[in-house]
Amino acid sequence: MGLVVQKYGGSSVADAESIKRVARRIVDTRSLGNDVVVVVSAMGDTTDDLRDLAQQVSPLPPARELDMLLTAGERISMALLAMAIADLGHQARSYTGSQAGVITDSAHGKARIIDITPGRIRQALDGGAVAIVAGFQGVSQDTKEITTLGRGASDTTAVALAAALGADVCEIYTDVDGVFTADPRIVPTARRIAQITTEEMLEMAANGTKVLHLRCVEYARRYAMPVHVRSSFSRHEGTWVIDSKDGQVMEQAIITGVSHDRSEAKITVVGVPDRPGKAAEIFQAVAGAGINIDMIVQNVSAAETGRTDVSFTLPKTDGPIAMTTLQNVQDAVGFASLQYDDLIGKISLVGAGMRTHPGVSATFFAALAQAGVNIEMISTSEIRISVVTRADAVDAAVRGVHTAFGLDSADEAVVYGGTGR
Amino acid sequence: MGLVVQKYGGSSVADAESIKRVARRIVDTRSLGNDVVVVVSAMGDTTDDLRDLAQQVSPLPPARELDMLLTAGERISMALLAMAIADLGHQARSYTGSQAGVITDSAHGKARIIDITPGRIRQALDGGAVAIVAGFQGVSQDTKEITTLGRGASDTTAVALAAALGADVCEIYTDVDGVFTADPRIVPTARRIAQITTEEMLEMAANGTKVLHLRCVEYARRYAMPVHVRSSFSRHEGTWVIDSKDGQVMEQAIITGVSHDRSEAKITVVGVPDRPGKAAEIFQAVAGAGINIDMIVQNVSAAETGRTDVSFTLPKTDGPIAMTTLQNVQDAVGFASLQYDDLIGKISLVGAGMRTHPGVSATFFAALAQAGVNIEMISTSEIRISVVTRADAVDAAVRGVHTAFGLDSADEAVVYGGTGR
Repeated sequence: MGLVVQKYGGSSVADAESIKRVARRIVDTRSLGNDVVVVVSAMGDTTDDLRDLAQQVSPLPPARELDMLLTAGERISMALLAMAIADLGHQARSYTGSQAGVITDSAHGKARIIDITPGRIRQALDGGAVAIVAGFQGVSQDTKEITTLGRGASDTTAVALAAALGADVCEIYTDVDGVFTADPRIVPTARRIAQITTEEMLEMAANGTKVLHLRCVEYARRYAMPVHVRSSFSRHEGTWVIDSKDGQVMEQAIITGVSHDRSEAKITVVGVPDRPGKAAEIFQAVAGAGINIDMIVQNVSAAETGRTDVSFTLPKTDGPIAMTTLQNVQDAVGFASLQYDDLIGKISLVGAGMRTHPGVSATFFAALAQAGVNIEMISTSEIRISVVTRADAVDAAVRGVHTAFGLDSADEAVVYGGTGR
Repeated sequence: MGLVVQKYGGSSVADAESIKRVARRIVDTRSLGNDVVVVVSAMGDTTDDLRDLAQQVSPLPPARELDMLLTAGERISMALLAMAIADLGHQARSYTGSQAGVITDSAHGKARIIDITPGRIRQALDGGAVAIVAGFQGVSQDTKEITTLGRGASDTTAVALAAALGADVCEIYTDVDGVFTADPRIVPTARRIAQITTEEMLEMAANGTKVLHLRCVEYARRYAMPVHVRSSFSRHEGTWVIDSKDGQVMEQAIITGVSHDRSEAKITVVGVPDRPGKAAEIFQAVAGAGINIDMIVQNVSAAETGRTDVSFTLPKTDGPIAMTTLQNVQDAVGFASLQYDDLIGKISLVGAGMRTHPGVSATFFAALAQAGVNIEMISTSEIRISVVTRADAVDAAVRGVHTAFGLDSADEAVVYGGTGR
């Protein structure tokens, strides 16, 4: 008996049958005496289909109009889901982001939530109805324009709404049984993680584990909102993402899991004059273009030339603009040339136990060596070690590391239909 | 130079190419120095597709949720149209019915416009942008819920908005060149009507001429808003629907045109006791079920039985509920039986000249006789004569009457792709 916020992704509401299945699940939760708020994404590939339609009309559509267009997707799924619940004899009312009080800034296409004023949602709950809320969308505070929060942001809507309503739990339904010690498509013996701290989940999400959106985990951490990631295709317990500070006793493993990411590229700036301020000039130029870089390595300077090479990784999608930006500052910075490499992969080992257990790095590098994987870059945080390798070495690296840290399960993980949400 | 409201139906924006074509047309009007407000329907069959989806989820979806669902249709088309205009280098901003200030009552699925407060539309115009407004939808005054105005009501949105903005003209774009003296699919030599009064247009729309929606004509009449019905597939002048009271000199033909309608059914109540109040009991029961009846005929009472038959016509879609309603009052009213006939058609001759030209009825009936058409019911207004016939006699009746009143043109009318809007 409490207030439960549930979020269902696009693959969970892909067609009429799926929507009815999700409705039954919601009604089950309601029938246990809970108040239920549901955040829903657009059906299946709707958002991509609408983007395609926009492309057919204009190669560079205005961001305001693109948001107006894309928000039709959740409008359709949320109304259908409310109908399916009503058909099961329960009250349900659907609300757009704007109606639900999801207030954002004015950055169309990648708006950030500023505030949530869920007056109508509370009214619906008080009236005994299930409230269905469109994920991924809001209304701008200043201009009262419809905004979208960016790809995958329905998770963020759910956690933010759960925090604003003081929910007992935020359940994120997806097409896998939770967060695994590695991607089960690469490591069939990967284990479901029963509990994970928000700080570990942040590291995994930031380093390629796609089950939860990074901003959603940041929200969960900020508001100490317990998140339960689970499958809409089964009734199994999933993964509880919990605040490490809230005193819950956890069976704390040294290593939580292995993440991997093949979505990054590497740029090497060759022959940078080894003088103070040169690295700053390079990264100021890149940051000015709005690009988030990930890992950075600077080689030891060659004494005879007084020059060095600087490498960094960044999302492949930002590669072209980063190259153009750097070419424009080549003369000013005085470097020799640029190299672009998009055949890299990153493997990350995450675990809060690293703080207190020395020797994790040694085991990690030994496992990579045994798997025949060459290391190109290294970066670490308090609870994570990441390496960059060739893209085609990632699978072997993940498997080798997973085994070396004793993460393999006796059983194979179940992978459901979809490949994402 | 003025303010033009244009309305484009679903067949005019059925795909990306059509949307771009409509955008060019809007930009042409804008480039002449006009302020332009555009009301747009959902693309092609979108509304029907969404209805089908709702049916798959629930046989009887809640009206509020159905409105939420269906309004996604215009959201998509209006955003795409705004993008296409922007792509031509002009500013455009799309607005939902709610954002455009279309205030309605709370009757989901068939809401009526109470008021229009087009503040944001004026702002867009003042800022030099074309304003694109979703047809068919609004927001309820009391509950702030999203409503729809019922089928074909985008025409009504356009005229109501034109009136609220004090527009110079409301252009209704469709897939025919205007209003014709008869349906060109039945009478290939039908002529386009250059000018028609709102009262004649009301009679034609109410009696089966589908080019303009009845409520839209009522609005045009109430606010004396000139309406120009024309094709989005050609640049021809269409039909001007104008207020007969505004003093414009018109080349007033005696007969304006011939309408026909095969969407009605006939119910005959057999053996009604011929006593005062019995007809009232019947029609009170039918009206209580929310059914609009059209024509009524009461036979001369048979002296030997003291009973009579009462026939009336009504929309076929209301047939089942009318029959159920009447069966429930059979004992109370004391009639013998009910007959249901949905193989009827109606032919109507409309023309303001009838008021002053006697002999129109005689020519009408003679033409029907010559075409071998049997008359089952007759009804008249000041400017209209209608008869009910067998459904399969309608085509011959329309052609015969059209010829008898000299309405045939030397040329064949052009019929474009679609069959409706």
